[in-house]
Amino acid sequence: MVSKELPFTQEKIKEIISEYPTPFHLYDKEGILDNARKMKEAFSIVNGFREYFAVKALPNPYIMKILKKEGFGADCSSMAELLLAEKTGITGENIMFSSNDTPAEEFVKAKKLGAIINLDDISHIEYLEEVAGLPELVCCRYNPGSLKKGNTIIGNPEEAKYGFTREQLFEGYKIMKEKGVKRFGLHTMVASNELEPEYFVETARILFELVAELSNELDIRFEFVNLGGGIGIPYRPEQEPVPYEKIATGVRDAYDENIRANGLHPLKIYLECGRVITGPYGYLVTTVRHLKQIYKDYVGTDASMANLMRPGMYEAYHHITVLGKENEELTHLYDVTGSLCENNDKFAIDRLLPEVERGDIIVIHDTGAHGHAMGFNYNGKLRSAEILLNEDGSFMQIRRAETIDDYFATLDFKDLNDF
Amino acid sequence: MVSKELPFTQEKIKEIISEYPTPFHLYDKEGILDNARKMKEAFSIVNGFREYFAVKALPNPYIMKILKKEGFGADCSSMAELLLAEKTGITGENIMFSSNDTPAEEFVKAKKLGAIINLDDISHIEYLEEVAGLPELVCCRYNPGSLKKGNTIIGNPEEAKYGFTREQLFEGYKIMKEKGVKRFGLHTMVASNELEPEYFVETARILFELVAELSNELDIRFEFVNLGGGIGIPYRPEQEPVPYEKIATGVRDAYDENIRANGLHPLKIYLECGRVITGPYGYLVTTVRHLKQIYKDYVGTDASMANLMRPGMYEAYHHITVLGKENEELTHLYDVTGSLCENNDKFAIDRLLPEVERGDIIVIHDTGAHGHAMGFNYNGKLRSAEILLNEDGSFMQIRRAETIDDYFATLDFKDLNDF
Repeated sequence: MVSKELPFTQEKIKEIISEYPTPFHLYDKEGILDNARKMKEAFSIVNGFREYFAVKALPNPYIMKILKKEGFGADCSSMAELLLAEKTGITGENIMFSSNDTPAEEFVKAKKLGAIINLDDISHIEYLEEVAGLPELVCCRYNPGSLKKGNTIIGNPEEAKYGFTREQLFEGYKIMKEKGVKRFGLHTMVASNELEPEYFVETARILFELVAELSNELDIRFEFVNLGGGIGIPYRPEQEPVPYEKIATGVRDAYDENIRANGLHPLKIYLECGRVITGPYGYLVTTVRHLKQIYKDYVGTDASMANLMRPGMYEAYHHITVLGKENEELTHLYDVTGSLCENNDKFAIDRLLPEVERGDIIVIHDTGAHGHAMGFNYNGKLRSAEILLNEDGSFMQIRRAETIDDYFATLDFKDLNDF
Repeated sequence: MVSKELPFTQEKIKEIISEYPTPFHLYDKEGILDNARKMKEAFSIVNGFREYFAVKALPNPYIMKILKKEGFGADCSSMAELLLAEKTGITGENIMFSSNDTPAEEFVKAKKLGAIINLDDISHIEYLEEVAGLPELVCCRYNPGSLKKGNTIIGNPEEAKYGFTREQLFEGYKIMKEKGVKRFGLHTMVASNELEPEYFVETARILFELVAELSNELDIRFEFVNLGGGIGIPYRPEQEPVPYEKIATGVRDAYDENIRANGLHPLKIYLECGRVITGPYGYLVTTVRHLKQIYKDYVGTDASMANLMRPGMYEAYHHITVLGKENEELTHLYDVTGSLCENNDKFAIDRLLPEVERGDIIVIHDTGAHGHAMGFNYNGKLRSAEILLNEDGSFMQIRRAETIDDYFATLDFKDLNDF
């Protein structure tokens, strides 16, 4: 029987439900903190390590503040995310602004905040200069094209819309140097939810070699490389977490071979992970509303794609625990569904579970990243609350559930009578 | 050169943009009205025809009101959609409540509004009775299972979570008759975006035969069949619209053979289409923000999946017109993208277009259904406004664009300082 541990008891969940009805996302603060500290510890062997949390994964300022206290920065991709960082007290070079197809006002805001601006395209050098002026420090995003094989979620880098080609990097840094930019970073992001540590070591090696070539050819100094994010999580119970140590050791060795050996030390090493930071510590808690037996057996929950899109959009696996039935045999094959009039509104297809009854509490695992953040309001469904479970067992709402008034906020019914 | 007609001039669009910046969804009222009238005209040959507009396709009360004036009802699937209908003045049996995995409060509201309740599952008979009492009129949704082949979007009916099996229908209506339900309807919905008229005629035939069997066996009278929606639209310029007349004629003939011949006339014929009603009359208007050339050529727009999800989610085709370049040769191969840090945020992949320049206005066709409605706020992106273009060329905003404050509405920053 495959299972995944839960960091809370059934009693605790019932206590939370008595205050906040399901569905809601529950985040385990202790889990997030432990994990953040483990990452820092593992990467303490690489030079100037820093993680910029990818805000898009879980854009909640309370979560961002927890991570800020651990020394993490914020990787922002839009105006809303820049404002979230600012409101959380994350400013200056604690923000990495990695966007694409960027509007002028976002460059202006990022510059004003003193964020590290990571350019997605060579044309953005001129654009940034025009709309906000070039800052002292600029980073460029590298798209290695066919050099690097992608994975299924992110596709092949050649097919990805992001970044500079190799030739454009040489040209771009040269232009920026001439325009007076003094400090440089290099970034890439070619994986998503990748479980193989060697993948990240290989990425680091490619960037280190490129830093050496660029530094040599253009006579510029790189301050950091940002290896991007993409460290995966074990969504399936039989999978193992990526050992941070393996990545860190591999990166350090590649650093010694390429950066130290070429006299380019010190070069700081940044990551911008989202999923691996909070993903495993989030749980979508939902109640079974209906059981249905037709050609298949269905468990109908009070959640939907409004709360969790990944299974419907990507056919992604999310483990499911029927609370209080962790030790029962998995005897029934179910599709676990939401209530959208959309047949892909299913959290699991053909999933073996213990026998489920109406009123059972279903815990959907690993929703701490790209969970609430991706929810939509299709079919007029409302997005759920977010609850933080503290280390001492206390809990607090860190985002309220949407109401019908929120759903109607952009409509003006006043003119409807005369229409 | 393939193209699609636009119901507005470049000058008109520029006039609208001067008041409402891109991106926005623009709806062509004249097109919607013409189409609604054509549908009514075509189906006037079938008994008691009525279309219930599937609100989920375009949940805007101004659009609903336009359709209400044409005699259309509202097909609602959730509390928010029921409330939208109510606010638009659509009540009673002008509402078809077709939901699944339904919460108690929605049945209560639907009953209070006097809506026709369309049950998705046999277990909902007891549930509805318990939470709201059984109304005089009840409809059941039939899932024909392997009897009927689905299409790629909706999947095979056997794999679909919706409806009663054939056996359950016989049992369900029997139970309801015993419990005092007096008036009956039968519903199915097995297609989505289907372009073959015969598909709908075949669906009608299946329902008519079933009505005959059920009426005969249980000695009940059916008041209507709801053939569901699913009539497709020609997203691609080389496709043809479904001729309503072909469906109507086929349905009438099947009616005569099955319903009249069995003395079951009159039986009303309902549809609950969404896409075909408004889909072709909506346009996502967006401005080119950046051009990018790496391994491929990219047109970066100021819209994103926040405004239109279908290409990213389903790899759906949406035709694209570069405004003012309708007569230019299609010489360039582009990916047309949004600004999400999500590589599937593309409106088109490898699309031949005339040469595009920064500032060009791009019109994405057929976004009048499942367009704005499916938008999310991933990456902190905001959903756009909806503008109605009137027959006389005047225009009005019928939904404002989201603001950052809307995005932050469910967050309470007050406690953040002490956190």
